[in-house]
Amino acid sequence: MQQKRIAIIGSGPSGMAQLRAFESARRAGADIPEIVCFEKQADWGGQWNYSWRTGIDEHGEPVHSSMYRNLWSNGPKEALEFADYSFDEHFGRPIGSYPPREVLWDYISGRVERSDVRKYVRFSTIVRWVTEDEATGQFHVTSEHLPDGTTETEVFDEVIVATGHFSFPKTPDFDGIETFTGQIMHAHDFRGAEGLRDRRVLLIGASYSAEDIGVQAFKMGAEHVTLSYRTKPIGVEWPDQIDERPLVTHFDGQTAHFSDGTSGHYDVVILCTGYAHHYPFLPSTLALDAPNSVYPGGLYRGVVWQGNPKLFYVGAHDQWFTFNMFDAQAWYVRDLILGRTEMPDAEARQRDIDAWLQRFDAIASAEDEVRFQADYIRDLIEQTDYPPFDLDEVVEIFLAWKHSKQENILGYRDYAYRSVMTGTMAAEHHTTWLAEMDDSLERYLGPGGLMPPEDDLRDNPLTASR
Amino acid sequence: MQQKRIAIIGSGPSGMAQLRAFESARRAGADIPEIVCFEKQADWGGQWNYSWRTGIDEHGEPVHSSMYRNLWSNGPKEALEFADYSFDEHFGRPIGSYPPREVLWDYISGRVERSDVRKYVRFSTIVRWVTEDEATGQFHVTSEHLPDGTTETEVFDEVIVATGHFSFPKTPDFDGIETFTGQIMHAHDFRGAEGLRDRRVLLIGASYSAEDIGVQAFKMGAEHVTLSYRTKPIGVEWPDQIDERPLVTHFDGQTAHFSDGTSGHYDVVILCTGYAHHYPFLPSTLALDAPNSVYPGGLYRGVVWQGNPKLFYVGAHDQWFTFNMFDAQAWYVRDLILGRTEMPDAEARQRDIDAWLQRFDAIASAEDEVRFQADYIRDLIEQTDYPPFDLDEVVEIFLAWKHSKQENILGYRDYAYRSVMTGTMAAEHHTTWLAEMDDSLERYLGPGGLMPPEDDLRDNPLTASR
Repeated sequence: MQQKRIAIIGSGPSGMAQLRAFESARRAGADIPEIVCFEKQADWGGQWNYSWRTGIDEHGEPVHSSMYRNLWSNGPKEALEFADYSFDEHFGRPIGSYPPREVLWDYISGRVERSDVRKYVRFSTIVRWVTEDEATGQFHVTSEHLPDGTTETEVFDEVIVATGHFSFPKTPDFDGIETFTGQIMHAHDFRGAEGLRDRRVLLIGASYSAEDIGVQAFKMGAEHVTLSYRTKPIGVEWPDQIDERPLVTHFDGQTAHFSDGTSGHYDVVILCTGYAHHYPFLPSTLALDAPNSVYPGGLYRGVVWQGNPKLFYVGAHDQWFTFNMFDAQAWYVRDLILGRTEMPDAEARQRDIDAWLQRFDAIASAEDEVRFQADYIRDLIEQTDYPPFDLDEVVEIFLAWKHSKQENILGYRDYAYRSVMTGTMAAEHHTTWLAEMDDSLERYLGPGGLMPPEDDLRDNPLTASR
Repeated sequence: MQQKRIAIIGSGPSGMAQLRAFESARRAGADIPEIVCFEKQADWGGQWNYSWRTGIDEHGEPVHSSMYRNLWSNGPKEALEFADYSFDEHFGRPIGSYPPREVLWDYISGRVERSDVRKYVRFSTIVRWVTEDEATGQFHVTSEHLPDGTTETEVFDEVIVATGHFSFPKTPDFDGIETFTGQIMHAHDFRGAEGLRDRRVLLIGASYSAEDIGVQAFKMGAEHVTLSYRTKPIGVEWPDQIDERPLVTHFDGQTAHFSDGTSGHYDVVILCTGYAHHYPFLPSTLALDAPNSVYPGGLYRGVVWQGNPKLFYVGAHDQWFTFNMFDAQAWYVRDLILGRTEMPDAEARQRDIDAWLQRFDAIASAEDEVRFQADYIRDLIEQTDYPPFDLDEVVEIFLAWKHSKQENILGYRDYAYRSVMTGTMAAEHHTTWLAEMDDSLERYLGPGGLMPPEDDLRDNPLTASR
């Protein structure tokens, strides 16, 4: 029998997990299929591969990453740790619980570098269009090598979509927004808050983007920050410079009017209005069309496309769990492709989808959503040889984290957690998040102590505690 | 014989010209093919269809238009007037020579509205992928209706690409640009200069984008504007607040260093580094791959794709002439498709391409480039029933315009020109460009006189003359 050919689209955290999954089987002696991973960026890491560019990249393609210079993990690293590659193994010693972007990128890329899977990836190569060949049941994948524009079409037996769901911004319209003469951008195009110093900033949204850009803007000296929510405020204890208001009804020049009748003058509007699943390379018969959610429909065990079980999605699920959930999905997809795990028929798959969706729909609290996602991951891990880990303990970490933000939105990143994988307690970091103005890996992993000049620091009681 | 099916991709100025060309033949009694015009935006007008959005649009697609709120035509309208639809016919009276965006949009959309061709256009529908069917010589065009995500593939006999070449920014890298903590954008994402008041602005580039964003920034009260050129400065007489410097060598935080050893501190960087031909829906066998130029290669008479003469490009040529050149191209493409004009064989086409390219390569001055383009248009018009007009006189207008910018970069838009089509002298506008803070159609076509409050106006000797 001819060797199967597998296409992986994307080499962000999910695509990297899929590469690691196959390589791990190969090293254990398995025959693995021929793998081609298509990556439109020049390097892997997906969201974690920072680019200064916004909007359209150097090849005329949408910039993939929504990353900003100053981003530190907004959840404890102990909740996303790989079960097969611990932080201890990578860094050789305990580090803090909330590493900045560059440190996390180092961790996730370190794992795959050590797996020697870079050879499977075609960088700067975008997938343009995928079709199903009805006669053979295979896929035709057309890709373009962006530096020279060459397109080619190849045949694959199975396709794994791992392009993520934080790249295509949702940009709702607001009455009169075209009369707002200040700067308008979506969080996707936010690259850092330094330019917001002394500015009045309106963030539309009440989820992670608004929350974190809000505190970044505060940290960098914004004069005032308003978060505008549609359903409910974030409701933590904000510093005086940050307030929350209900949804914008309309703009009139630089004045925003809110549904409670108040208004405010702003210099900058940042739409923190979320992201959409968007697969411009897939026909509608294959494209996942769902809101960002913990359990989007149409996917058996969250990964098998019900319309064609030779198409898989890895990393299509939203929040709480991330890297180790992608691993659980990737290991399971690998085993389906290798034939180690049986693919149920369409009816059985639908029953399973419906049962999980029914359970998901009944969830009333964020806490139960975390537990639901832990159960989902547990179900996947039980099918494969991915190292099992204490998911209940990770749930506890998530709940403690949520509580810590409520308690101290400007200081929660200074807390430390214990690794579920190794039992190692995170290091207390040398500098508080609010006082630290250098987000580099060198600074984070260095000895600390060299502080920026005093006048770079926000005049706030919290920084005084460092 | 079955009716032919023609796909037009894009309904900006070029696609509109193509629709008008076919409709004009139909009204004169010709049988025209079935036409489907695909337009990804919700309305036609291409660049002239202003959107407040930047980067990615509401459907996850690259924003097409590079238009900004305050844009007024940067060349006299007498140089772009349609020969078959004059400004007099549209507005019923003389107007100024440099209308703002909304007025020009009204003119170009007015012509096609009166032609009743909207019925041919599928709005909010993007072409995803085009393939050649080798067996039949036809094209398979796959499109997506963006609001519902439905994709479909249809067969066409001929395809006309009219997607423009000012939508995909070129974004070169600069050493250290990732350390610049102010705002960075490409001119494509510039939406207005009001937010540049009191800011120090660096524009990288020395062509139309840099020139016009520079004077817009000055008008809106920027503290200082630097234009950075690669080969040579624009070299007009700038006001004190604007200077020109050679190319940026590197950035160090908010400091830009230039190749002459000088440096400067900036709040905002705008890349006025131009645009690229980019056809993400075409395989490399069909995609024009050339720099923006007055005569890109590979196109017989500037419109027939040499690799497959059933594929046409309209509006692929850069600068001087615009709307009436698109007309000349569209009428000629129409006649080729209708069989009114013979398609030469590949060898004869190549000889013609080579002859024009040879002539183009020998051009030494901008003036000769204008004359070259006039000759190109004349050659096209002679093949069709498009109303002939005095191209030499349009050349004179272009030369006078170039001179006027040299003379008065802040005031050249106050000059008036005579129509080549109707002999009508443009009206002297009620307000100078520098003094006018309202760019709306109502204001421009209204009686004038109502001036904005004095403190909205730049404190500059030129405004005092109003």
